[in-house]
Order: sequence, then C-alpha cells, then structure tokens
Amino acid sequence: MAKDQIRGRSGARRAWLGSLSALTLATAALVASQPLGAQTVGTAATEKAFDAQISAADQLAWLKEMSSAPNHVGSPHDKANAEMELALFKQWGWDAHIETFKVLYPTPISTTLELISPDKVTLGGQEPQLGPDKLDGALPPYVAYQGDGDVTAPVVYVNYGMPDDYEALARRGISVKGKIVIARYGGGWRGLKPKLAQEHGAVGCLIYSDPADDGYARGDAYPKGGARPEGGVQRGSVMDMIIYPGDPLTPGVGATDNAKRLTRAEAKTILKIPALPISYGDATKILAGLNGPVVTGRDRGGLPIPYHWGGSDAVKVHLAVKSDWSLKTLYDVIAVMKGSTRPDEWIVRGNHRDGWVFGADDPLSGQVALMSEAKALGALARNGWRPERTIVYASWDGEEPGLLGSTEWAETHADELQAKAVLYINTDDTSRGFLGAEGSHTLQHFVNSIARDVPDPQTGVSVYDRQRAAIRASAYAGGGRDAPGALEAAKAGGDLPIGALGSGSDYSAFIEHLGIPSVNLGFGGEGAGGGSYHSAYDTYYHVTNFDDPGLVYGATLSKVVGRMVLRSASAPRVPMRYGDFASTVARYVGEVKKLDTDQREQDRALKDLGRDDVFKLASSPVDPTIAPEDRGVTPLIDMLALEDASDRLTRSAHAADAALDRASPDKLARVAPLLNGIDQLLLDKNGLPGRPWYRNLIYAPGTLTGYGAKTLPGVREGIEQRRFDDAREYVAKTAAALNRYADRLDEAVKLLKS
Amino acid sequence: MAKDQIRGRSGARRAWLGSLSALTLATAALVASQPLGAQTVGTAATEKAFDAQISAADQLAWLKEMSSAPNHVGSPHDKANAEMELALFKQWGWDAHIETFKVLYPTPISTTLELISPDKVTLGGQEPQLGPDKLDGALPPYVAYQGDGDVTAPVVYVNYGMPDDYEALARRGISVKGKIVIARYGGGWRGLKPKLAQEHGAVGCLIYSDPADDGYARGDAYPKGGARPEGGVQRGSVMDMIIYPGDPLTPGVGATDNAKRLTRAEAKTILKIPALPISYGDATKILAGLNGPVVTGRDRGGLPIPYHWGGSDAVKVHLAVKSDWSLKTLYDVIAVMKGSTRPDEWIVRGNHRDGWVFGADDPLSGQVALMSEAKALGALARNGWRPERTIVYASWDGEEPGLLGSTEWAETHADELQAKAVLYINTDDTSRGFLGAEGSHTLQHFVNSIARDVPDPQTGVSVYDRQRAAIRASAYAGGGRDAPGALEAAKAGGDLPIGALGSGSDYSAFIEHLGIPSVNLGFGGEGAGGGSYHSAYDTYYHVTNFDDPGLVYGATLSKVVGRMVLRSASAPRVPMRYGDFASTVARYVGEVKKLDTDQREQDRALKDLGRDDVFKLASSPVDPTIAPEDRGVTPLIDMLALEDASDRLTRSAHAADAALDRASPDKLARVAPLLNGIDQLLLDKNGLPGRPWYRNLIYAPGTLTGYGAKTLPGVREGIEQRRFDDAREYVAKTAAALNRYADRLDEAVKLLKS
Repeated sequence: MAKDQIRGRSGARRAWLGSLSALTLATAALVASQPLGAQTVGTAATEKAFDAQISAADQLAWLKEMSSAPNHVGSPHDKANAEMELALFKQWGWDAHIETFKVLYPTPISTTLELISPDKVTLGGQEPQLGPDKLDGALPPYVAYQGDGDVTAPVVYVNYGMPDDYEALARRGISVKGKIVIARYGGGWRGLKPKLAQEHGAVGCLIYSDPADDGYARGDAYPKGGARPEGGVQRGSVMDMIIYPGDPLTPGVGATDNAKRLTRAEAKTILKIPALPISYGDATKILAGLNGPVVTGRDRGGLPIPYHWGGSDAVKVHLAVKSDWSLKTLYDVIAVMKGSTRPDEWIVRGNHRDGWVFGADDPLSGQVALMSEAKALGALARNGWRPERTIVYASWDGEEPGLLGSTEWAETHADELQAKAVLYINTDDTSRGFLGAEGSHTLQHFVNSIARDVPDPQTGVSVYDRQRAAIRASAYAGGGRDAPGALEAAKAGGDLPIGALGSGSDYSAFIEHLGIPSVNLGFGGEGAGGGSYHSAYDTYYHVTNFDDPGLVYGATLSKVVGRMVLRSASAPRVPMRYGDFASTVARYVGEVKKLDTDQREQDRALKDLGRDDVFKLASSPVDPTIAPEDRGVTPLIDMLALEDASDRLTRSAHAADAALDRASPDKLARVAPLLNGIDQLLLDKNGLPGRPWYRNLIYAPGTLTGYGAKTLPGVREGIEQRRFDDAREYVAKTAAALNRYADRLDEAVKLLKS
Repeated sequence: MAKDQIRGRSGARRAWLGSLSALTLATAALVASQPLGAQTVGTAATEKAFDAQISAADQLAWLKEMSSAPNHVGSPHDKANAEMELALFKQWGWDAHIETFKVLYPTPISTTLELISPDKVTLGGQEPQLGPDKLDGALPPYVAYQGDGDVTAPVVYVNYGMPDDYEALARRGISVKGKIVIARYGGGWRGLKPKLAQEHGAVGCLIYSDPADDGYARGDAYPKGGARPEGGVQRGSVMDMIIYPGDPLTPGVGATDNAKRLTRAEAKTILKIPALPISYGDATKILAGLNGPVVTGRDRGGLPIPYHWGGSDAVKVHLAVKSDWSLKTLYDVIAVMKGSTRPDEWIVRGNHRDGWVFGADDPLSGQVALMSEAKALGALARNGWRPERTIVYASWDGEEPGLLGSTEWAETHADELQAKAVLYINTDDTSRGFLGAEGSHTLQHFVNSIARDVPDPQTGVSVYDRQRAAIRASAYAGGGRDAPGALEAAKAGGDLPIGALGSGSDYSAFIEHLGIPSVNLGFGGEGAGGGSYHSAYDTYYHVTNFDDPGLVYGATLSKVVGRMVLRSASAPRVPMRYGDFASTVARYVGEVKKLDTDQREQDRALKDLGRDDVFKLASSPVDPTIAPEDRGVTPLIDMLALEDASDRLTRSAHAADAALDRASPDKLARVAPLLNGIDQLLLDKNGLPGRPWYRNLIYAPGTLTGYGAKTLPGVREGIEQRRFDDAREYVAKTAAALNRYADRLDEAVKLLKS
C-alpha cells in the first residue's frame, strides 16, 4: 500500500522537476526561512531557533537542483554545485571560499567487455535510462584506479572475492592464475576484490551486483521500487586506500599546484589489472556457462541459475579498459564562522558533494542536510548569536574516487588542524529510519545526549527512543547483530554504544591520520537497501520515493548535527567522556585476547583434523575438497602490558571525568590545551605495519575489510594475519599510547585540583 | 569433473535400460551369488559369508526392473513388483506370502489450475518428460487426501505455511480467509500446509518446490544434474497423519475386507479444502503478480522476482481437484524365517515398495537393499545357518499416501506383535554419504557397534569413522547442527548419538502405536539433495547418476542392516543398552525444563516490549508491522516428578546394563520375558492429547512439525502449544511411565541376581 501511494505521487513530481535554476531555488529557500527573535540566548532557546530554520522544503529544492545533472569530479555540474554552495554560504553570512587541488583522477576513455565463448556477445556499456533522469554527460560504469589493460581469458567465479573465498577455491584445487575473476559486490570493500584477484594471479576482475544483495531479493526494481534493476551497475573506487587514501601521487601531502608528485607507476594505490563493474543482466550471461564444482549455500547469489566456481575454459571473456589519466581539479567549499572567545578551537563539519552520476542519495542527501545547518547557523549569527569556538563547514569534492577532497585538505592543513581542530563531524548519504553513529568513543555520551533531544519525525518520540526500540525489536526477532551491550543499554535506557570508524567516508584523514576526535552520523534502515548505490538510478526520484520521502529524515539529521555543532562550539568544554573511551578500549583488549586464544584453538583443531584425515574422509564425491592449509599454531601473545595500560586508563579516565564535571569554566579553559589534542597521543609516528599513513593505534579500516573498522589494529591484524612479531610490537606501542593518554588525563586532573 | 564422468556414463546406461524381464534378472542375480562354505559358523564368519552375498549388481538389476514403470498404490506395476518379490523371497527359501488390505486411496480424476487474473493462463498438469523414462501410466501431480473442490480466489503467499509464517502475516494485517494460499515446500511436513491454511480460513492451497530449496540453488537441473527442474513437482500425502496414519476409514484396526469402516465424511484425517502441488515454473507466474508488502530475508525463496505476501486481489486463480475415492488394494509382501530356539521373538525389518511415479530412489533404493539382505540370509540358511529368533521381512505397500501398508499390518497383528516383536528395523530411500540413524535410544550402542564394523565404500574406513569425520569437518566449518554431544563423541571415538523418531516412514505404527523398539537407517548427504523427490524424475537414471552411482551405498546399507538382523536374531539377548536411553531421557527432561523457563522469559519480554510500545516505534514505513499477539505468560510447570523419575531411571538402567553384561545365557533367557516388552510400558492407553493413536510418551511426531520428532511430547507440546494443564498431566503420566520402566529393570536385576 505504501508503494501505491508512492507511485501515485511520482507523476506529479516528474511534472515540476528541473525547471528552476540553482540560485532561484536558493533564494526562494532563503526567503522561506522563518524570522529569528530574541530567543537565541541560551542553549535550549538557541536550539529551538536553530530548528525553526531547518526546512525539508529547502533540502528538497537544493537536492533537485544539485542532482539534476551528473556531478562526478571534473564534471561541469560538480563545479556549478560548488559555486552555488559558495554563493549560498556567503549569502548566509559565512566567510567562504573554494579551495582547489589537482589530483590524479582517471576517467574511462573506453571500456570493453565481450563474451568470447561459448558465444560471442557484447556486454557492458552505459546503464539504460529507466527513470525520468537523462544520462547525458554521465560516465559509463567503471571503477576508478583499476589498472587499464586488454585481456582475454577464462572466467572463475570467486563469490565476494574475499580471503575465505580464495580458501574455498584452493580447497577445490581451482586457481585464478591467468584468469578473469567475476566477483559479486558485498562481503568487504570493493577495492579488495581486484586487489586480491591480482595477488592471486588473475589478469582481470569483473564485479557485479547480485540480486540477492541489492536486487529483487530486496524488493521491486527501480523505478517501480527502490531495488537495483537488471541493468543497474555499481560504480566506485578500487584505489588501494588501505595503504593511503587521497591523491595517489601525493601521499601524506596536499595535492596543491606545486606539490611534489609521484609518477603514476610509483603510486602504490593504483591496481595493475583491469577491472570493470557490471550488471547482473550481464553477469548472468557469463555465469550461466561456467562449469566445475557447484556453488551452494552462502557462496552463491540470487540468480536463477546453478552457480559454478568455474574451473574449465568453458567461458572466456575479453575485457579492456583504457582511461584518461590526466590531473583533474577538485573544488572544496570551505566556510568559516569565527569563534568569539576560542577562535583557535575548531569544530569541523563536512560532507562530500561529488557523486558518481546524479548522486542524489550519495552524497547529496547528506550535503543538503549540511546546507540546512549552515543556513540556520547563519541566521542565528545574523540575529546576534556567535559560537565561542570557530565553526568550519566543508563541502568536499572527490570523495568517491578516494576521499580526495577531504584528504588533500587535511594533509595541506595538517599542522593547523592538529593545533586547532577539536572535533570533526561527518555525514554522507542518509535515508529514513534509525540514527547510526560511529566515532571516537569519547563522543559516545555526547551523541546519545543529542539523540535524546531530537524528535523522530515518524513517531514523535526521540531519535534515541526509536533506536532503543529498533534494538529491542530486532533482539526479540532473533536479530542480535548489535554492538555488545547495546541491548542491555536499550532496555535500561542507558547510552547506546556507538560503532568504531573504519573507512568509506571523509573522516579518515581526521581520525586516522591526524588524531582528531571524529564522528560519522546518518539515518538508515528504512530506505531502499542500497538498490541505487553508485548507479545512474541514484536520483532525486529515487530518494524522494524510496529513500527519504519528503526528506523528513534529512531535516532530522540537520537537527542532530546542528545540535552537535552548537553544543560543541559553545560549551565550556567539548563534551568528551573519557570513561566511555576507556571501557570501550577495555572491551577491545578483551577481544584481541580472545582472538588470540580462539585462533590458537582453531589452529590446533585444524592440526587434529589433519592428523585424523578428517577432511579427506569427509570429502564428498559431489564436491571434493582438500584440507584447509595448515598455517601453524598461533602463539599465545603476552598482552599484560596492554591489559595493564587499559586498566590504568580506566582509572585515570574516571578520575578525569569526575574532575571535569565539577570544574569551573575557568579551570576548564586552563586544561583545554592539555585535552584538546589528547587523541593525537594515540598516533604512532610510523603508523601501522605496511601503511604508515594510518597512524591511529586504536581505530583503522581493516586491511581485509576496507569499510569495516579494526580496533587496536596493530595487534588485532597482527594476530589475524599471523604477523605475530608485529602483534607483539604493537602490544607495546598501543600500551605506550594508552599510558601517554592516561598520563595526560592525570596531568589534567592535577591541574584541575591545583 | 565428477559431473563430467557421470555424463560420460549415462549414454551407455541408457542403452542397456529396460529390456530384461523381472524374473530373468532375479534369476541372473541369484546365479551370480557366491557359494557358501562352512564359514557360516560363529558371528564374524557368518557376517563374512553374509557380506559375500551382497551384490550391488543385484540391486542395480532389481532397481532397474522395479522402477521401469509407475508403481503407485493400485498400479499394475506395484502389484507386479510385489509378485516378483514374493517369487524371489520364496526362491531364496523364505516362507513368504502377500497380505492384502482394502484402503481408501484417492487418485485424481481431474486437477485444474488456471491463473484468472491478471492474465488467463492454464497451469498445472503432468510433468514434462526430461530423462529417458516415459510417463505412461503415471498419475498427474497431486496430493493425496486433500479435500476436492472447485474454488476461484485471490492468492496469498505464505512462505512455508507454518505457524510462524501466519504470525508474520498477522503482524502485517494480512488474512488468508477466503483466499488460496501458495506455500513453498519445506519448513515442516507437507500436510501441515493445507491443514493450517484451512484452519486460517483459506479455501485452497497450492504447494510448490522453490528452487532455493531443491532446484538450481543446489546444482544443475535434471537430467544434466540432480536438482529439480523448472517443471518438476513434488507429489505427496497431505493426510492429517498427526491424528493417526494408515487408512483413514479404519483408525486403530486393520483395513481387512470385513473391517468396520468410517464414512469418508467421518474420517478426521482427510482435509476439507482442495490442494495441489505445482512446479516453480507455474509458481513464478502466480507469484510475479502479487503485491502488498515485500517479503525479504529467509521468508523469500530463490525465484528471480521480488516476493510479495499478497494482500490485494491482483492475482486470482481457479483451482479444482476431483478424485476417485474408491477403495484400493494394498499388497504387503511378508517373508518369514523361523527362529530355531526363540521362534516367538521376532526381528521385523521393513521398507516400503510403492512410489509416487517410478520411485527409484524413494523407496526402491532402500527396497533393493532389503532384498539383498533377504537373498543373503536365504543363502546362509540354505547352507545350514539358522537364526535363534524369527526374522520377518516386509515389503510394505502404500507408505506414500499415509504409511498404509505398515500401519494396517501392524494394527491387524497388534497383539501378536506386542507379544513377539522385539525390534523393528526400517529403511526407506537411501543415497550415498553418511549413515543416518534414528530410533529408540536403547539401540544407540548397537547401531554404533555395527557402524564400526562396516567399511565405507568410498574411503575404506568404517562407516562410523566416516560419520565422525563428517561431524568434525562440519563443526570446523561452523556447521554444528549435529545432536548435542555428537562432536564430543566424534572427537573421543565414543558412540555417536542417534536421533529420535518422528514420522515419515513405516516405523510409526511399531514405535509410536505399539511400543516396539525401532530404528530407521539410511545413507545420505552426498546425493542430489532431494531434487527428484516425489517427482517423475525419481528414476533409475537419476539414482545411478546422482544419488548412488553403482549403488555402492545400497550394498553398504544391506551390510549394516544385515548385521543388525543377524546379531539381534542370534545374540543371547537383543543388544539394548538402557543407560543410553536413560541419559537421553535425562537430556530431554532438561530440554523441557529449559523450554518452560525460556518461553516464560520470552513471554515476559514480549509484555515489556508491548508496554514500551517497542513494536510500534520500530515499525518501518516500508513494511509496517504490529506487535505479535500477547498470549499471556507461560507458568513455571512443576517437573519434580519427571526429574525424579529420570534420576531413578538412570540408576536402574546402569544397574541393569551392568547385570545384563555379566549374565549367563541361561539367566538372560529367564529375564527375556521381562525385558522384551519393556518399551510398551512407555505407552499410555489414552495416547497423547487429541491423538489417542499415538501412545508413546517418549517419542512422537510433532503436531506442528510432522516429520520432526517431539520427545516427551505430552509435556513438550503442552508447553509449546500453551496447553499447560496438559503439560502438567503429562509430567505425571510420563514420570509414571519412566517409573514403571525402572521398576521392570529393577525386577530384571533382581531376577538376574537371584
């Protein structure tokens, strides 16, 4: 029934789509703002006045305009959107400018995909137009920073193309050497698929969107519903961001005009083999011909064919990708509102602006929420309110290809940011549903306190109460994939745990390279489940019909983030709670200890099974498999130093929280220099093993997960990847960092008590 | 690669298929037997001589002949197979006869299925011929004992059509009242689907085979592979066997010529609404048009369409079934080999003979294994060996429609069986892989000791060692769906737990109605995963290509069952171990206690969630749901009597095992009258609540699972179905039964020690 209503509205929407110009819309939106009175004094009144300025109608108008043409890096519309935002920021009273960078950003000159045998069939090419949006000016489906090349080879299906998939292949005696692999999206970050394929000797990589993951298994296909249609393709980056994100030619430094640049061949983050994303329509034609062992259970997707791992040369494809590897210009829009009393403490808030095609959901749904906040803050300021600290709003360019705009800006301004930035708040695409939050755990209580104050637009209860309900309902249904402690907190009404940050959006440089406390926020869970993600169908029509009709959650996101900005910009201290960080670290320490003993137990079990010929005896004639590779027995790693540091951190953190809660504004001002940069004590100057750019010893994206966080990464991945000496080294380093952190807290407490 | 070999062989097989007559084949097989020498003295030598007579070639020849034409109840070929078996049994030296019964067995006169809207399309009808086997004489797809009728109504998808599916529908405000439901196979017994549909007010029921369950998700479709093809249909019975199996007109008594019969209208086990099984090809045409809420996750199947629960009248179908409800004749072949010293202690061994179409796997793969045993036993007997106890071999007719042949025979001979039968051994369809065993837990050690002695044909280790390997390999892979204690036993080399018997084959009357210790055996796990089950593609070609090429596991099953017959027929006592039964009962008592407290906790959690509006707050606009029905809070049931009886049973059982192990043959003979009927003490004369035919207080098929066993059923289902007074009553009854059983053991021990 909900779907019928949506279909009913769509005709009307199509009629009033895309006629007004950007500035007309912006002005109209500004005029529609409500006047501000004297109620801007004091926090509650300020927030009420702020809320009054947040308008879903504004956001709809901006979204319609900004997503009206393809807006990838280097496109005219991306630049036009930057200029429109610049004009708006200025109009709203911000000190705004555009900062440019020159980055290596490949765009496809040609992409070729042909089935050679059993039949010759041309595949690939642009997605068909299905909704109202014309694809003029859109790039064809491709993945950025693949390796260009022209290869013809047999095909092997590798499921998600993750390490355990290669183990499944190895157990069946199937090699991808000299082959083109076909992987489905999901199971880990896109870029790992061609990277692991390359490491295993493949000469090319196809990635397709399986309907089990975001197609018909999720609902009706676009434009009837929000699910990915047969011809839909997920574009994206396959840059090896696990080494470093940002411009491949300028690691660690800003890609300014005169930056010293690597050659393309020197850049480690560019892959060597060609790769191409394809639709499930095309994938079906390739997969249907494969033979070899049948793929069953979770390793198969949702296509109406038997899946086979491949293994003979029954299916051969020709894959060729050629790119324009010239430098392109990024346009970051930076808007500053100077703090009245603490101008050298910065609250930085960003969302990217570039999309893959129209980018209505990703990133513009978050971008228009950011714009609403900026407009409302401008209105507050025009009516006499000023933040104590400086507020910096950023509309990042080039996030999609590799967090380019945020990374280059952060690298360019690294020293100033480390000296001044006390908080980075990120959003990206957002839809309807429940607030999701990941970030530095010192911010956990702050996030919760705001979620308790903002009403959910659908139910009228607080965003926090809706989160609680979702956790409890999911647990009742046997879901239970929430963070440890979430259900207990939801029942008792305590703070809900926030997640850890991995990668996948613009916070990376801030938290993982510079050590600035960061948080990422967004609503989700009741949208279209990723059916338009990075495709030509991520449109205004899709967003307003399937992801967040009326942008009511977009407006709610503005209220959440706006409060975070308002409170952190004007509170006597940035509201950190060190005890939350300490207890989370203690949990992580418990996890890595358990990882060590569990992995050891698993290794020993494998040895026992090998000794008893279990795999040989259990092997099926239908799908013969050999034993998994015996990789030795994980040693027990001495983690006493880490446990001890974690214990000490807990004590120091509780003492600091207690002292800070009682401290006068004066005292708080005196300890601010000690505490504002405290997270930088968690950085190691040499970074993580093999990836010096990532310096945070607590939070990192997993080298084999990509999006997913690995906490205590030096230790955890040392164990997981069987680099046990690294694990031992990082036990010491991480313990030292936690001790430095505790020292600093102790110093602050001493100062507060003096 | 395995598949290529199979395809390579298939041509040759087709060439020599179906030319020899049954008797020619049988004689050829007999001539091929190896001569028996003097080695038939003593157990090991006897078993060696027995094994030498087991021939996969025999089984292939019989299977080819017996599956050469449709052999459902009432078909000429079913009768011919009975007559062929009778001749063979006699030839092998058995005292054999055919016993007939007259039963109500409906066959379809006409089945009609039409899509009426959105388009008019004729559906249903016979399956297309795909393999070498011609379908002449086959019944069209239907389900026996559905209710005949002619209805036209809108369609609602009900997933598996089990109770939790109706809860999912209710939470979405969708009623099936006046509708035709379409359910997919799986999730519980077939017959529950139309039964529950009828209880919820539906006017018709379609059941289809979803490719996620036995189609392309499992592999290549027949005849390329063993998976169910697009046009394949699963026939079957939908008799309400949960009330009683066997002829619907003669509950509790044999359907002899002069039996007193109910009218068809009086028979409670016949459904009231029409039902029809269909292919996924047909189901797709119906499901594609449904609208209403999208079905996601585990509730959807594997068709390449979005699933919708239905809910509007978009799809209407016309369903009509008309049956011939005349009585048909069953032909049970009964063969007896009289015991030399204990002729009044019977070992009964059976397998059904009737199929739905060709029945090559189900049931003939098990039937030819039984025939091999009978031939080998006959050869042993001809060479001077005689069993101490009487052996009764049975080839049951009419199992498919409702365990007719075994039930009517058991009911006819109930008194004699309760007086004489000490063991019933059942098999049914079998394929390659691992030995599966379910049965009375007194037999657990016996089954294990035999599995240790029979070599697995694929690996050369024992069948038991291969089971162990499978359990350990599955646990390593994270499977872990084995019985409690299985992994530990597999590691340590102890007895592997056997499962409990529910229903679904011919043991039901023996164990659940008469209280005769029973076991069901078969190999599986490396066949085609049910892709031919109850369809026209369950053929010789399918079995020999995909289920058990060469019937090497068929021969192994003969060796397993043959040992069981040989040992139980001639050992000083039937090898029961009461301690295994006692420890299993103790586990069940623990389970029902936990069920009670868990359900109570779940009920209270639901109340909390309702109080806090959790379901309302968590409801999604994409798929709005209301709270599950609040059915009150499960009380704590006093189970002290049951716990006490279980404790006592454990002590008595251990004492009995110890005393029996030390007892002389003489003493054993003296206690046999006490112990042979001991399992009948587990019966309650009034049976289980609502189903007096089922009298066993320990083992029963679940009323809401069908195939699956419910142990301590009076108590367990009393709690699950919230009949708490029943639960309390059956705590007392079950405790009393266990005490009776312990008393009897104590009596035996006393006698042994006297």
